[in-house]
Amino acid sequence: MTSLKQAVLATTALLFAQGGLAQANELRDTALETFDPVPATVPAQVDNPITPEKIELGKALFFDPRVSASGVFSCNSCHNLATGGDDNLETSIGHGWQKGPRNAPTALNAVFNGAQFWDGRAEDLKAQAKGPVQAGVEMANTPANVTQMLNSMPQYVEWFEASFPGEDDPVTFDNFAKAIEAFEATLITPAPFDAWLNGDDAALGEAEQAGLKLFMDKGCASCHNGVNVGGHDYYPFGLVEKPGADVLPEGDKGRFAVTETADDEYVFRAAPLRNIALTAPYFHSGKVWDLKTAVQIMAESQLGEEMTDGETDQIVAFLNSLTGKMPEIVYPVLPAETADTPRPSGDVLVEDGNKKDLSDQ
Amino acid sequence: MTSLKQAVLATTALLFAQGGLAQANELRDTALETFDPVPATVPAQVDNPITPEKIELGKALFFDPRVSASGVFSCNSCHNLATGGDDNLETSIGHGWQKGPRNAPTALNAVFNGAQFWDGRAEDLKAQAKGPVQAGVEMANTPANVTQMLNSMPQYVEWFEASFPGEDDPVTFDNFAKAIEAFEATLITPAPFDAWLNGDDAALGEAEQAGLKLFMDKGCASCHNGVNVGGHDYYPFGLVEKPGADVLPEGDKGRFAVTETADDEYVFRAAPLRNIALTAPYFHSGKVWDLKTAVQIMAESQLGEEMTDGETDQIVAFLNSLTGKMPEIVYPVLPAETADTPRPSGDVLVEDGNKKDLSDQ
Repeated sequence: MTSLKQAVLATTALLFAQGGLAQANELRDTALETFDPVPATVPAQVDNPITPEKIELGKALFFDPRVSASGVFSCNSCHNLATGGDDNLETSIGHGWQKGPRNAPTALNAVFNGAQFWDGRAEDLKAQAKGPVQAGVEMANTPANVTQMLNSMPQYVEWFEASFPGEDDPVTFDNFAKAIEAFEATLITPAPFDAWLNGDDAALGEAEQAGLKLFMDKGCASCHNGVNVGGHDYYPFGLVEKPGADVLPEGDKGRFAVTETADDEYVFRAAPLRNIALTAPYFHSGKVWDLKTAVQIMAESQLGEEMTDGETDQIVAFLNSLTGKMPEIVYPVLPAETADTPRPSGDVLVEDGNKKDLSDQ
Repeated sequence: MTSLKQAVLATTALLFAQGGLAQANELRDTALETFDPVPATVPAQVDNPITPEKIELGKALFFDPRVSASGVFSCNSCHNLATGGDDNLETSIGHGWQKGPRNAPTALNAVFNGAQFWDGRAEDLKAQAKGPVQAGVEMANTPANVTQMLNSMPQYVEWFEASFPGEDDPVTFDNFAKAIEAFEATLITPAPFDAWLNGDDAALGEAEQAGLKLFMDKGCASCHNGVNVGGHDYYPFGLVEKPGADVLPEGDKGRFAVTETADDEYVFRAAPLRNIALTAPYFHSGKVWDLKTAVQIMAESQLGEEMTDGETDQIVAFLNSLTGKMPEIVYPVLPAETADTPRPSGDVLVEDGNKKDLSDQ
């Protein structure tokens, strides 16, 4: 190859790269009007200063199955940090082998949601943390039993004292929830999409960038935006065309149960899409296992769009770029029970209000 | 104080310390004829070379709930490494909220047991690992479904290839069990008792040493000896006096089910006692929650001894010195499902042989 030819080729490549760069910059500028990268530090929480002690305590509580009445389920059972922060079940199996009503959302990056649960009924993570503990189909426990359990173990009492210094009686259900919030606030998973938003052109390939562009152009980003690519606002499922009753069961009217407003029938919080490739099955009903199918259902029901196969693939490629890097979590060593620790019970409340040991059936 | 008096006192103290030292050395010499400290390295396993790749794969499998048919239970559910390697339940709750027949033993230091399970029916950890996966009341899964699950995720296939180099088809149920054995072989918890056996006089206090002496003098160590302070040989529960049917249920004849020999009725493997303070409730029936009570029952039923309160306290002090230091375990990030991954099912086999979804009952 002559050196002239080399020079020409090099110049062409440079110009081409610059052209690509300009396009990428334009796409990035548009994207930055719609999305935000995850922050580099743990975000502050309302009325809950985050300290290393509180994070460690929250981690212990998150992994402690004694938080449930049966001693079988921890927060991590349904929000498993080994599998994308959820349990990969249609709906979770809880106390007495009962099925929960809705698909368990991921705990990863949940700190960036505008509110918690599919219907947004908890305003933040500390409010959310109190729910499953008391739900009869989940942990079936009571705040009194949880604090008795925690108070029975001197190591837990010490950890609460270190996490809530200056409080006379730090072992409370409120503080239990605050510690879990502190731990969950650390569950942030920076993804290739964040690196790209932050200026790393190589972090997204062509298909991912094309998918991102489509995601914005087609209107997906009207609901799925912000740092969590969703998780902020409420929309009817079936804005244009109601999906079948298999995907949208009639009995679950979503946010209507929270607001009792007719407009909120079948309204749900737009799902946050970070790590969506890890958290099948999809939708509040958990009836759809394939991400591509889920994208197609969304396109039809929310946008009235029939996307081509190629378009759907590109959007899935973009969604894959939201799969992030898990923080390293050292599995906790929990305090040992004492004589005062409440004994686990797998009994289930039956219709007459009595408890029944269903496990022997 | 005169310097003469000081010198006399110092000499007395020295002599006293030397006397204590001589006693400690004598106790240690006797103890070393009966017990062994845990080794400093992971012990080799028969037909299963242990490599870092295999340990990591085994850890992933140990924590993966997709090993169970329902997707709810992992090995760690009943052998929870956060709570002493067991689940702190009377007997475990498994598939369909069914109760297992016997108390879950700890996975910690299980590698040092002569055989696995309460009746020793598995000769080693790789044989043991296959049991709960297939037990209807535990994980209710099949080897074929497990290997299909593993083969459906390219990351798992890569990990098996790296762990079993040179094998044509490394993703087998046998290799699944071998990888779990490799991980479990690392679950060794050196305790104060080991430090003391290794020569650290300060590692055991007076009460612990007195308890150790009693433990040997009274005859406890006749069955509970070796590196795991038990776990090696088989003895009738109720050698001298049968405990009540609450503690020793008549329906469970122990090792008799394995050997079908009349001599083996109500015979069980002597429980390994490392970390015993963390693994209440006690005995194969899991009916006794208090360690002191468990010691008293053992003294009466196995030795025909009525121990004083003070003696029992000393033995409990010694048993507490068997609580060891957990290895640091980084919680794994598991491969994501694909379209080919078998779907979880909480269905339970009912009497007519059909499967039934009990979760909706």
